[in-house]
Amino acid sequence: MEVILAKHAGFCFGVKRATQLAFEAADIGRETYTLGPIIHSPQVVQRLEEMGVIPVENVSEVESGGTIIIRSHGVAAEELEAAVRANLEVVDATCPFVKKAQEHVATLSKEGYDIVVVGDAVHPEVQGIVSYAAGRVYVVSSGKDVERLPRMSKIGIVAQTTQSFEHLQDVVTACLARGGETRVYNTICDATAVRQDEAKKLAGAVDCMVVIGGFNSANTKRLAQICRELLPRTHHVETACQIDAQWFEGVEKVGVTAGASTPKWIIDEVINRISAIDKDKIS
Amino acid sequence: MEVILAKHAGFCFGVKRATQLAFEAADIGRETYTLGPIIHSPQVVQRLEEMGVIPVENVSEVESGGTIIIRSHGVAAEELEAAVRANLEVVDATCPFVKKAQEHVATLSKEGYDIVVVGDAVHPEVQGIVSYAAGRVYVVSSGKDVERLPRMSKIGIVAQTTQSFEHLQDVVTACLARGGETRVYNTICDATAVRQDEAKKLAGAVDCMVVIGGFNSANTKRLAQICRELLPRTHHVETACQIDAQWFEGVEKVGVTAGASTPKWIIDEVINRISAIDKDKIS
Repeated sequence: MEVILAKHAGFCFGVKRATQLAFEAADIGRETYTLGPIIHSPQVVQRLEEMGVIPVENVSEVESGGTIIIRSHGVAAEELEAAVRANLEVVDATCPFVKKAQEHVATLSKEGYDIVVVGDAVHPEVQGIVSYAAGRVYVVSSGKDVERLPRMSKIGIVAQTTQSFEHLQDVVTACLARGGETRVYNTICDATAVRQDEAKKLAGAVDCMVVIGGFNSANTKRLAQICRELLPRTHHVETACQIDAQWFEGVEKVGVTAGASTPKWIIDEVINRISAIDKDKIS
Repeated sequence: MEVILAKHAGFCFGVKRATQLAFEAADIGRETYTLGPIIHSPQVVQRLEEMGVIPVENVSEVESGGTIIIRSHGVAAEELEAAVRANLEVVDATCPFVKKAQEHVATLSKEGYDIVVVGDAVHPEVQGIVSYAAGRVYVVSSGKDVERLPRMSKIGIVAQTTQSFEHLQDVVTACLARGGETRVYNTICDATAVRQDEAKKLAGAVDCMVVIGGFNSANTKRLAQICRELLPRTHHVETACQIDAQWFEGVEKVGVTAGASTPKWIIDEVINRISAIDKDKIS
Protein backbone atom coordinates (compact mmCIF):
# COMPACT_ATOMS: atom_id res chain seq x y z
CA MET A 1 0.00 0.00 0.00
CA GLU A 2 1.40 3.34 -1.05
CA VAL A 3 0.96 6.30 1.34
CA ILE A 4 1.09 9.71 -0.37
CA LEU A 5 1.44 12.79 1.84
CA ALA A 6 0.26 16.11 0.40
CA LYS A 7 3.09 18.62 0.04
CA HIS A 8 1.16 21.39 1.79
CA ALA A 9 -0.25 19.29 4.62
CA GLY A 10 -0.20 20.83 8.09
CA PHE A 11 0.97 24.11 9.61
CA CYS A 12 0.51 27.28 7.61
CA PHE A 13 2.83 30.25 8.13
CA GLY A 14 0.70 31.92 10.83
CA VAL A 15 0.11 28.76 12.86
CA LYS A 16 3.80 27.79 12.67
CA ARG A 17 4.78 31.24 13.94
CA ALA A 18 2.20 31.21 16.78
CA THR A 19 3.22 27.73 17.91
CA GLN A 20 6.90 28.63 17.89
CA LEU A 21 6.22 31.74 19.96
CA ALA A 22 4.23 29.67 22.48
CA PHE A 23 6.90 26.96 22.81
CA GLU A 24 9.59 29.64 23.18
CA ALA A 25 7.57 31.27 25.98
CA ALA A 26 7.15 27.86 27.61
CA ASP A 27 10.93 27.30 27.47
CA ILE A 28 11.57 30.50 29.40
CA GLY A 29 9.52 28.94 32.16
CA ARG A 30 7.62 32.06 33.27
CA GLU A 31 3.95 31.91 34.20
CA THR A 32 2.39 31.94 30.74
CA TYR A 33 -1.18 31.88 29.46
CA THR A 34 -2.89 31.91 26.09
CA LEU A 35 -6.08 33.85 25.53
CA GLY A 36 -8.25 31.06 24.14
CA PRO A 37 -6.57 28.03 22.53
CA ILE A 38 -3.38 29.16 20.75
CA ILE A 39 -4.40 27.23 17.59
CA HIS A 40 -7.26 24.84 16.76
CA SER A 41 -5.31 21.71 17.72
CA PRO A 42 -6.29 20.11 21.06
CA GLN A 43 -3.03 18.10 20.96
CA VAL A 44 -0.78 21.17 20.63
CA VAL A 45 -2.79 22.94 23.34
CA GLN A 46 -2.38 19.91 25.63
CA ARG A 47 1.37 19.63 25.02
CA LEU A 48 1.79 23.34 25.81
CA GLU A 49 -0.33 22.90 28.93
CA GLU A 50 2.03 20.13 30.08
CA MET A 51 4.85 22.66 29.65
CA GLY A 52 2.98 25.24 31.75
CA VAL A 53 1.27 27.33 29.08
CA ILE A 54 -2.34 27.51 30.25
CA PRO A 55 -5.29 28.64 28.10
CA VAL A 56 -7.62 31.12 29.82
CA GLU A 57 -10.93 32.53 28.65
CA ASN A 58 -10.45 36.00 30.04
CA VAL A 59 -7.59 38.40 30.78
CA SER A 60 -8.90 38.78 34.36
CA GLU A 61 -7.84 35.18 35.09
CA VAL A 62 -4.15 36.19 34.80
CA GLU A 63 -2.34 37.98 37.61
CA SER A 64 -0.45 41.22 36.98
CA GLY A 65 3.05 40.58 35.63
CA GLY A 66 2.10 37.29 33.95
CA THR A 67 2.69 36.65 30.25
CA ILE A 68 -0.27 36.29 27.92
CA ILE A 69 -0.02 34.97 24.38
CA ILE A 70 -2.52 36.20 21.78
CA ARG A 71 -3.55 33.22 19.64
CA SER A 72 -3.04 33.00 15.86
CA HIS A 73 -6.71 33.93 15.13
CA GLY A 74 -6.24 37.18 17.04
CA VAL A 75 -8.54 38.57 19.71
CA ALA A 76 -10.93 41.49 20.06
CA ALA A 77 -9.31 44.91 20.36
CA GLU A 78 -10.80 45.42 23.83
CA GLU A 79 -9.31 42.13 25.10
CA LEU A 80 -5.87 43.21 23.93
CA GLU A 81 -6.35 46.59 25.63
CA ALA A 82 -7.50 44.84 28.82
CA ALA A 83 -4.29 42.76 28.82
CA VAL A 84 -2.17 45.90 28.51
CA ARG A 85 -4.19 47.67 31.21
CA ALA A 86 -3.75 44.67 33.53
CA ASN A 87 0.04 45.04 33.22
CA LEU A 88 0.49 41.70 31.49
CA GLU A 89 3.39 40.98 29.19
CA VAL A 90 1.73 40.43 25.79
CA VAL A 91 3.22 38.05 23.21
CA ASP A 92 1.19 38.77 20.08
CA ALA A 93 1.05 35.55 18.06
CA THR A 94 -1.78 36.86 15.86
CA CYS A 95 -1.17 35.65 12.30
CA PRO A 96 0.31 38.64 10.40
CA PHE A 97 -2.34 38.17 7.67
CA VAL A 98 -5.13 38.38 10.27
CA LYS A 99 -3.40 41.42 11.78
CA LYS A 100 -3.51 43.11 8.37
CA ALA A 101 -7.27 42.50 8.13
CA GLN A 102 -7.74 44.00 11.62
CA GLU A 103 -5.65 47.05 10.67
CA HIS A 104 -7.56 47.57 7.40
CA VAL A 105 -10.87 47.50 9.28
CA ALA A 106 -9.60 50.06 11.80
CA THR A 107 -8.36 52.40 9.04
CA LEU A 108 -11.45 52.02 6.82
CA SER A 109 -13.70 52.60 9.79
CA LYS A 110 -11.82 55.79 10.75
CA GLU A 111 -12.15 57.00 7.16
CA GLY A 112 -15.93 56.73 7.34
CA TYR A 113 -16.54 53.40 5.61
CA ASP A 114 -19.19 50.98 6.76
CA ILE A 115 -17.44 47.63 7.11
CA VAL A 116 -18.42 44.32 5.55
CA VAL A 117 -16.43 41.26 6.66
CA VAL A 118 -16.77 38.19 4.45
CA GLY A 119 -16.64 35.23 6.80
CA ASP A 120 -18.20 33.17 9.55
CA ALA A 121 -19.64 35.41 12.28
CA VAL A 122 -18.97 32.91 15.07
CA HIS A 123 -15.32 32.24 14.16
CA PRO A 124 -12.85 33.81 16.65
CA GLU A 125 -10.79 35.34 13.80
CA VAL A 126 -13.87 37.17 12.49
CA GLN A 127 -14.94 38.26 15.99
CA GLY A 128 -11.48 39.75 16.46
CA ILE A 129 -11.49 41.53 13.08
CA VAL A 130 -14.99 42.93 13.65
CA SER A 131 -13.93 44.47 16.98
CA TYR A 132 -11.58 46.88 15.17
CA ALA A 133 -14.49 48.73 13.52
CA ALA A 134 -15.41 52.03 15.14
CA GLY A 135 -18.73 52.37 13.29
CA ARG A 136 -21.13 50.06 11.50
CA VAL A 137 -19.85 46.56 10.74
CA TYR A 138 -21.59 43.53 9.22
CA VAL A 139 -20.46 39.93 8.75
CA VAL A 140 -21.78 38.27 5.59
CA SER A 141 -21.04 34.99 3.89
CA SER A 142 -22.67 35.62 0.50
CA GLY A 143 -24.01 38.25 -1.87
CA LYS A 144 -27.52 37.29 -0.70
CA ASP A 145 -26.66 38.47 2.81
CA VAL A 146 -25.65 41.87 1.39
CA GLU A 147 -29.18 42.47 0.09
CA ARG A 148 -30.43 42.58 3.67
CA LEU A 149 -27.97 45.29 4.75
CA PRO A 150 -29.05 48.94 5.13
CA ARG A 151 -28.11 51.64 2.62
CA MET A 152 -24.38 52.42 2.59
CA SER A 153 -22.55 54.88 0.34
CA LYS A 154 -18.97 53.88 1.29
CA ILE A 155 -18.41 50.18 1.84
CA GLY A 156 -15.07 48.81 3.08
CA ILE A 157 -14.62 45.05 2.63
CA VAL A 158 -12.14 42.56 4.10
CA ALA A 159 -12.33 38.77 4.25
CA GLN A 160 -11.61 36.15 6.86
CA THR A 161 -8.17 34.90 5.76
CA THR A 162 -9.45 31.36 5.08
CA GLN A 163 -12.47 32.38 2.95
CA SER A 164 -12.84 31.14 -0.62
CA PHE A 165 -12.23 33.72 -3.35
CA GLU A 166 -15.70 32.94 -4.76
CA HIS A 167 -17.35 34.13 -1.55
CA LEU A 168 -15.38 37.39 -1.60
CA GLN A 169 -16.21 37.90 -5.28
CA ASP A 170 -19.92 37.24 -4.67
CA VAL A 171 -20.07 39.76 -1.82
CA VAL A 172 -18.09 42.42 -3.72
CA THR A 173 -20.40 42.08 -6.74
CA ALA A 174 -23.46 42.52 -4.52
CA CYS A 175 -21.91 45.60 -2.88
CA LEU A 176 -20.97 47.10 -6.27
CA ALA A 177 -24.56 46.71 -7.41
CA ARG A 178 -25.64 49.00 -4.56
CA GLY A 179 -23.71 51.84 -6.24
CA GLY A 180 -21.39 54.29 -4.52
CA GLU A 181 -17.92 53.30 -3.44
CA THR A 182 -16.63 49.84 -2.65
CA ARG A 183 -13.11 49.51 -1.25
CA VAL A 184 -11.80 45.99 -0.91
CA TYR A 185 -8.72 44.55 0.72
CA ASN A 186 -8.29 40.98 -0.46
CA THR A 187 -7.07 39.58 2.85
CA ILE A 188 -7.52 35.95 1.81
CA CYS A 189 -4.39 33.92 2.47
CA ASP A 190 -3.88 31.52 -0.41
CA ALA A 191 -2.48 28.77 1.84
CA THR A 192 -6.05 27.50 2.27
CA ALA A 193 -6.78 27.42 -1.47
CA VAL A 194 -3.41 25.80 -2.27
CA ARG A 195 -4.01 23.09 0.37
CA GLN A 196 -7.56 22.46 -0.89
CA ASP A 197 -6.54 22.28 -4.56
CA GLU A 198 -3.80 19.83 -3.73
CA ALA A 199 -6.19 17.70 -1.62
CA LYS A 200 -8.67 17.59 -4.52
CA LYS A 201 -5.98 16.31 -6.90
CA LEU A 202 -4.81 13.74 -4.36
CA ALA A 203 -8.36 12.52 -3.62
CA GLY A 204 -8.84 11.92 -7.33
CA ALA A 205 -5.71 9.75 -7.53
CA VAL A 206 -6.04 7.45 -4.48
CA ASP A 207 -8.48 4.84 -3.10
CA CYS A 208 -8.72 6.27 0.41
CA MET A 209 -8.04 9.68 2.02
CA VAL A 210 -7.08 10.45 5.59
CA VAL A 211 -7.49 14.09 6.66
CA ILE A 212 -5.80 15.01 9.94
CA GLY A 213 -6.73 17.94 12.17
CA GLY A 214 -8.72 19.25 15.13
CA PHE A 215 -12.42 18.40 15.10
CA ASN A 216 -12.81 22.08 16.12
CA SER A 217 -10.78 23.28 13.11
CA ALA A 218 -13.01 24.80 10.42
CA ASN A 219 -10.34 24.51 7.71
CA THR A 220 -9.75 20.81 8.47
CA LYS A 221 -13.49 20.05 8.41
CA ARG A 222 -13.78 21.85 5.05
CA LEU A 223 -10.75 19.93 3.74
CA ALA A 224 -12.37 16.60 4.70
CA GLN A 225 -15.65 17.70 3.11
CA ILE A 226 -13.94 18.60 -0.20
CA CYS A 227 -12.16 15.21 -0.30
CA ARG A 228 -15.34 13.31 0.66
CA GLU A 229 -17.27 14.88 -2.23
CA LEU A 230 -14.75 13.33 -4.61
CA LEU A 231 -13.94 10.19 -2.62
CA PRO A 232 -16.50 8.84 -0.11
CA ARG A 233 -13.70 6.76 1.50
CA THR A 234 -12.41 9.89 3.29
CA HIS A 235 -11.73 9.83 7.05
CA HIS A 236 -11.16 12.82 9.35
CA VAL A 237 -8.98 11.99 12.38
CA GLU A 238 -7.37 14.06 15.11
CA THR A 239 -4.74 11.52 16.12
CA ALA A 240 -3.15 8.23 14.99
CA CYS A 241 -5.10 6.17 17.54
CA GLN A 242 -8.34 6.97 15.67
CA ILE A 243 -7.09 5.10 12.58
CA ASP A 244 -9.11 1.95 11.83
CA ALA A 245 -7.34 -0.88 9.96
CA GLN A 246 -10.59 -1.82 8.19
CA TRP A 247 -10.52 1.48 6.24
CA PHE A 248 -7.65 0.13 4.14
CA GLU A 249 -9.18 -3.16 2.96
CA GLY A 250 -8.39 -3.55 -0.75
CA VAL A 251 -6.71 -0.13 -0.83
CA GLU A 252 -3.61 0.31 -2.99
CA LYS A 253 -3.05 4.05 -2.53
CA VAL A 254 -3.79 6.19 0.53
CA GLY A 255 -3.68 9.98 0.40
CA VAL A 256 -2.90 11.93 3.56
CA THR A 257 -3.37 15.63 4.14
CA ALA A 258 -3.77 17.82 7.22
CA GLY A 259 -5.36 21.12 8.26
CA ALA A 260 -3.41 24.31 8.93
CA SER A 261 -3.26 23.69 12.68
CA THR A 262 -2.02 20.08 12.57
CA PRO A 263 1.56 19.66 13.87
CA LYS A 264 4.11 17.58 12.02
CA TRP A 265 4.46 15.08 14.88
CA ILE A 266 0.78 14.07 14.56
CA ILE A 267 1.10 13.70 10.76
CA ASP A 268 4.16 11.48 11.29
CA GLU A 269 2.32 9.34 13.85
CA VAL A 270 -0.63 8.87 11.48
CA ILE A 271 1.64 7.85 8.59
CA ASN A 272 3.55 5.44 10.84
CA ARG A 273 0.28 3.90 12.01
CA ILE A 274 -1.01 3.42 8.44
CA SER A 275 2.33 1.89 7.39
CA ALA A 276 2.23 -0.46 10.40
CA ILE A 277 -1.26 -1.66 9.42
CA ASP A 278 0.08 -2.40 5.96
CA LYS A 279 2.97 -4.46 7.34
CA ASP A 280 0.56 -6.40 9.63
CA LYS A 281 -1.51 -7.31 6.55
CA ILE A 282 1.54 -8.61 4.66
CA SER A 283 2.91 -10.67 7.55
CA MET B 1 -50.90 49.06 -37.00
CA GLU B 2 -50.13 49.92 -33.38
CA VAL B 3 -47.01 52.03 -32.69
CA ILE B 4 -45.61 51.61 -29.17
CA LEU B 5 -43.00 54.13 -27.99
CA ALA B 6 -40.67 53.04 -25.16
CA LYS B 7 -41.10 55.14 -22.01
CA HIS B 8 -37.36 55.81 -21.68
CA ALA B 9 -36.66 56.51 -25.36
CA GLY B 10 -34.37 59.44 -26.12
CA PHE B 11 -32.48 62.03 -24.08
CA CYS B 12 -30.93 60.96 -20.81
CA PHE B 13 -30.39 63.49 -18.01
CA GLY B 14 -26.85 64.48 -19.08
CA VAL B 15 -27.68 64.90 -22.77
CA LYS B 16 -30.83 66.91 -21.99
CA ARG B 17 -28.79 69.24 -19.76
CA ALA B 18 -25.99 69.65 -22.34
CA THR B 19 -28.43 70.36 -25.16
CA GLN B 20 -30.34 72.92 -23.08
CA LEU B 21 -27.08 74.71 -22.18
CA ALA B 22 -26.09 74.80 -25.86
CA PHE B 23 -29.46 76.16 -27.03
CA GLU B 24 -29.41 78.76 -24.22
CA ALA B 25 -25.92 79.87 -25.33
CA ALA B 26 -27.19 80.05 -28.93
CA ASP B 27 -30.11 82.25 -27.83
CA ILE B 28 -27.76 84.79 -26.27
CA GLY B 29 -26.30 85.17 -29.74
CA ARG B 30 -22.62 85.45 -28.77
CA GLU B 31 -19.90 83.77 -30.80
CA THR B 32 -20.20 80.22 -29.45
CA TYR B 33 -18.36 76.98 -30.15
CA THR B 34 -18.52 73.40 -28.92
CA LEU B 35 -15.38 71.38 -28.37
CA GLY B 36 -16.24 68.36 -30.52
CA PRO B 37 -19.92 67.58 -31.22
CA ILE B 38 -22.02 68.55 -28.17
CA ILE B 39 -23.81 65.17 -28.24
CA HIS B 40 -23.74 62.18 -30.63
CA SER B 41 -26.65 63.43 -32.75
CA PRO B 42 -25.72 64.91 -36.16
CA GLN B 43 -29.20 66.49 -36.35
CA VAL B 44 -28.88 68.36 -33.04
CA VAL B 45 -25.35 69.45 -34.00
CA GLN B 46 -26.67 70.72 -37.35
CA ARG B 47 -29.58 72.62 -35.78
CA LEU B 48 -27.19 74.30 -33.32
CA GLU B 49 -24.84 75.13 -36.18
CA GLU B 50 -27.74 76.86 -37.97
CA MET B 51 -28.16 78.92 -34.77
CA GLY B 52 -24.47 79.86 -34.79
CA VAL B 53 -23.03 77.26 -32.39
CA ILE B 54 -20.06 75.83 -34.27
CA PRO B 55 -18.20 72.63 -33.37
CA VAL B 56 -14.39 72.96 -33.38
CA GLU B 57 -11.77 70.28 -32.95
CA ASN B 58 -9.34 72.39 -30.95
CA VAL B 59 -9.42 75.29 -28.49
CA SER B 60 -6.90 77.16 -30.68
CA GLU B 61 -9.61 77.59 -33.35
CA VAL B 62 -11.53 79.97 -31.05
CA GLU B 63 -10.52 83.59 -30.60
CA SER B 64 -9.98 85.03 -27.11
CA GLY B 65 -13.25 86.12 -25.50
CA GLY B 66 -15.36 83.58 -27.38
CA THR B 67 -17.60 81.10 -25.59
CA ILE B 68 -16.76 77.40 -25.70
CA ILE B 69 -19.16 74.67 -24.61
CA ILE B 70 -17.71 71.43 -23.21
CA ARG B 71 -19.77 68.52 -24.61
CA SER B 72 -21.72 66.01 -22.48
CA HIS B 73 -18.98 63.34 -22.79
CA GLY B 74 -16.45 65.76 -21.27
CA VAL B 75 -13.01 66.57 -22.62
CA ALA B 76 -9.42 65.95 -21.55
CA ALA B 77 -8.20 67.96 -18.56
CA GLU B 78 -5.53 69.67 -20.69
CA GLU B 79 -8.13 70.84 -23.25
CA LEU B 80 -10.20 72.42 -20.48
CA GLU B 81 -7.05 74.10 -19.12
CA ALA B 82 -6.15 75.33 -22.60
CA ALA B 83 -9.60 76.93 -22.93
CA VAL B 84 -9.16 78.75 -19.62
CA ARG B 85 -5.61 79.84 -20.57
CA ALA B 86 -6.92 81.16 -23.91
CA ASN B 87 -9.33 83.43 -22.01
CA LEU B 88 -12.43 81.72 -23.38
CA GLU B 89 -15.72 81.70 -21.53
CA VAL B 90 -16.29 78.04 -20.69
CA VAL B 91 -19.80 76.56 -20.46
CA ASP B 92 -19.22 73.12 -18.96
CA ALA B 93 -21.97 70.83 -20.26
CA THR B 94 -20.11 67.68 -19.15
CA CYS B 95 -22.67 65.19 -17.84
CA PRO B 96 -22.49 65.37 -14.02
CA PHE B 97 -22.09 61.58 -13.86
CA VAL B 98 -19.08 61.74 -16.22
CA LYS B 99 -17.70 64.63 -14.12
CA LYS B 100 -17.89 62.40 -11.04
CA ALA B 101 -15.87 59.69 -12.80
CA GLN B 102 -13.25 62.28 -13.80
CA GLU B 103 -13.04 63.58 -10.22
CA HIS B 104 -12.71 60.09 -8.75
CA VAL B 105 -9.83 59.33 -11.13
CA ALA B 106 -8.06 62.56 -10.13
CA THR B 107 -8.46 61.83 -6.39
CA LEU B 108 -7.51 58.14 -6.63
CA SER B 109 -4.49 59.01 -8.71
CA LYS B 110 -3.34 61.62 -6.18
CA GLU B 111 -3.73 59.04 -3.41
CA GLY B 112 -1.31 56.68 -5.19
CA TYR B 113 -3.71 54.31 -6.91
CA ASP B 114 -3.04 52.92 -10.38
CA ILE B 115 -6.21 53.57 -12.37
CA VAL B 116 -8.28 51.07 -14.32
CA VAL B 117 -11.12 52.48 -16.43
CA VAL B 118 -13.71 49.97 -17.61
CA GLY B 119 -14.76 51.13 -21.05
CA ASP B 120 -13.98 51.72 -24.69
CA ALA B 121 -10.53 53.32 -25.10
CA VAL B 122 -11.49 55.26 -28.24
CA HIS B 123 -14.70 56.75 -26.82
CA PRO B 124 -14.37 60.50 -26.08
CA GLU B 125 -15.87 60.06 -22.60
CA VAL B 126 -13.17 57.53 -21.70
CA GLN B 127 -10.41 59.66 -23.23
CA GLY B 128 -11.58 62.54 -21.06
CA ILE B 129 -11.75 60.44 -17.87
CA VAL B 130 -8.30 58.94 -18.51
CA SER B 131 -6.74 62.40 -18.80
CA TYR B 132 -7.46 63.09 -15.11
CA ALA B 133 -4.99 60.43 -13.94
CA ALA B 134 -1.64 61.76 -12.76
CA GLY B 135 0.07 58.35 -12.78
CA ARG B 136 -0.50 54.97 -14.41
CA VAL B 137 -3.88 54.47 -16.09
CA TYR B 138 -5.25 51.59 -18.16
CA VAL B 139 -8.47 51.17 -20.12
CA VAL B 140 -9.88 47.63 -20.13
CA SER B 141 -13.12 46.13 -21.33
CA SER B 142 -12.95 42.74 -19.60
CA GLY B 143 -11.29 40.70 -16.89
CA LYS B 144 -9.12 39.12 -19.59
CA ASP B 145 -7.57 42.53 -20.33
CA VAL B 146 -6.63 42.87 -16.64
CA GLU B 147 -4.39 39.79 -16.84
CA ARG B 148 -2.10 41.66 -19.23
CA LEU B 149 -1.59 44.62 -16.86
CA PRO B 150 1.61 45.01 -14.81
CA ARG B 151 1.72 44.33 -11.04
CA MET B 152 -0.27 46.86 -9.01
CA SER B 153 -0.81 46.91 -5.24
CA LYS B 154 -3.45 49.65 -5.12
CA ILE B 155 -5.98 49.63 -7.95
CA GLY B 156 -8.61 52.36 -8.35
CA ILE B 157 -11.47 51.50 -10.72
CA VAL B 158 -14.14 53.62 -12.40
CA ALA B 159 -16.37 52.79 -15.37
CA GLN B 160 -17.51 54.60 -18.48
CA THR B 161 -21.02 55.70 -17.47
CA THR B 162 -22.70 53.62 -20.20
CA GLN B 163 -20.86 50.33 -19.44
CA SER B 164 -22.80 47.21 -18.52
CA PHE B 165 -22.61 46.14 -14.87
CA GLU B 166 -21.35 42.71 -16.01
CA HIS B 167 -18.23 44.30 -17.52
CA LEU B 168 -17.49 46.22 -14.33
CA GLN B 169 -18.03 43.09 -12.24
CA ASP B 170 -15.76 41.04 -14.50
CA VAL B 171 -12.93 43.58 -14.27
CA VAL B 172 -13.29 44.02 -10.49
CA THR B 173 -13.14 40.25 -9.96
CA ALA B 174 -9.96 40.03 -12.05
CA CYS B 175 -8.39 42.91 -10.07
CA LEU B 176 -9.39 41.32 -6.73
CA ALA B 177 -7.68 38.10 -7.79
CA ARG B 178 -4.40 40.01 -8.07
CA GLY B 179 -4.54 40.64 -4.32
CA GLY B 180 -3.83 43.91 -2.54
CA GLU B 181 -6.37 46.72 -2.54
CA THR B 182 -9.14 47.36 -5.04
CA ARG B 183 -11.14 50.57 -4.70
CA VAL B 184 -14.13 50.90 -6.97
CA TYR B 185 -16.47 53.74 -7.74
CA ASN B 186 -19.50 52.36 -9.55
CA THR B 187 -19.90 55.29 -11.96
CA ILE B 188 -22.31 53.44 -14.24
CA CYS B 189 -25.45 55.49 -14.92
CA ASP B 190 -28.44 53.17 -14.89
CA ALA B 191 -30.25 55.13 -17.65
CA THR B 192 -28.51 52.86 -20.19
CA ALA B 193 -29.53 49.63 -18.45
CA VAL B 194 -33.11 50.85 -17.93
CA ARG B 195 -33.42 51.80 -21.62
CA GLN B 196 -31.94 48.47 -22.74
CA ASP B 197 -34.17 46.38 -20.43
CA GLU B 198 -37.23 48.22 -21.68
CA ALA B 199 -36.16 47.76 -25.34
CA LYS B 200 -35.73 44.02 -24.76
CA LYS B 201 -39.26 43.71 -23.36
CA LEU B 202 -40.67 45.77 -26.23
CA ALA B 203 -38.80 43.76 -28.91
CA GLY B 204 -40.32 40.60 -27.45
CA ALA B 205 -43.86 41.98 -27.77
CA VAL B 206 -43.90 43.51 -31.28
CA ASP B 207 -43.40 42.39 -34.91
CA CYS B 208 -40.94 45.11 -35.89
CA MET B 209 -38.62 47.48 -33.99
CA VAL B 210 -37.35 50.90 -35.05
CA VAL B 211 -34.35 52.22 -33.09
CA ILE B 212 -33.61 55.92 -33.60
CA GLY B 213 -30.26 57.60 -33.00
CA GLY B 214 -26.95 58.80 -34.42
CA PHE B 215 -25.02 56.22 -36.45
CA ASN B 216 -22.03 57.53 -34.43
CA SER B 217 -23.79 56.88 -31.11
CA ALA B 218 -22.41 53.80 -29.34
CA ASN B 219 -25.41 53.46 -27.04
CA THR B 220 -27.87 53.58 -29.99
CA LYS B 221 -25.88 50.95 -31.93
CA ARG B 222 -25.87 48.72 -28.85
CA LEU B 223 -29.62 49.28 -28.40
CA ALA B 224 -30.27 48.20 -32.01
CA GLN B 225 -28.01 45.17 -31.58
CA ILE B 226 -29.87 44.05 -28.42
CA CYS B 227 -33.24 44.36 -30.19
CA ARG B 228 -31.97 42.62 -33.35
CA GLU B 229 -30.82 39.60 -31.32
CA LEU B 230 -34.42 39.13 -30.17
CA LEU B 231 -36.16 40.41 -33.30
CA PRO B 232 -34.34 40.32 -36.66
CA ARG B 233 -36.89 42.84 -38.03
CA THR B 234 -35.06 45.68 -36.20
CA HIS B 235 -34.08 48.85 -38.09
CA HIS B 236 -31.66 51.56 -36.93
CA VAL B 237 -32.45 55.01 -38.38
CA GLU B 238 -31.15 58.49 -37.73
CA THR B 239 -34.11 60.37 -39.20
CA ALA B 240 -37.70 59.83 -40.39
CA CYS B 241 -36.72 60.01 -44.07
CA GLN B 242 -34.78 56.73 -43.68
CA ILE B 243 -38.00 54.85 -42.87
CA ASP B 244 -38.95 52.32 -45.56
CA ALA B 245 -42.66 51.46 -45.96
CA GLN B 246 -41.81 47.86 -46.90
CA TRP B 247 -40.52 47.20 -43.35
CA PHE B 248 -44.11 47.20 -42.10
CA GLU B 249 -45.65 44.64 -44.48
CA GLY B 250 -47.88 42.35 -42.40
CA VAL B 251 -46.84 44.10 -39.18
CA GLU B 252 -49.47 44.61 -36.46
CA LYS B 253 -47.31 46.13 -33.75
CA VAL B 254 -44.23 48.37 -34.15
CA GLY B 255 -41.95 49.17 -31.20
CA VAL B 256 -40.00 52.42 -31.22
CA THR B 257 -37.09 53.36 -28.99
CA ALA B 258 -34.24 55.85 -29.24
CA GLY B 259 -30.68 56.31 -27.96
CA ALA B 260 -29.70 58.76 -25.22
CA SER B 261 -28.72 61.48 -27.72
CA THR B 262 -31.88 61.39 -29.85
CA PRO B 263 -34.03 64.54 -29.52
CA LYS B 264 -37.79 64.36 -29.07
CA TRP B 265 -38.46 66.13 -32.36
CA ILE B 266 -36.80 63.31 -34.34
CA ILE B 267 -38.71 60.65 -32.38
CA ASP B 268 -41.96 62.52 -33.15
CA GLU B 269 -41.07 62.74 -36.86
CA VAL B 270 -40.36 59.00 -37.01
CA ILE B 271 -43.64 58.13 -35.30
CA ASN B 272 -45.57 60.46 -37.62
CA ARG B 273 -43.90 58.90 -40.64
CA ILE B 274 -44.75 55.34 -39.52
CA SER B 275 -48.34 56.37 -38.79
CA ALA B 276 -48.59 58.00 -42.24
CA ILE B 277 -47.42 54.77 -43.92
CA ASP B 278 -50.11 52.93 -41.99
CA LYS B 279 -52.77 55.36 -43.21
CA ASP B 280 -51.51 55.07 -46.80
CA LYS B 281 -51.90 51.29 -46.55
CA ILE B 282 -55.48 51.59 -45.25
CA SER B 283 -56.60 54.13 -47.86
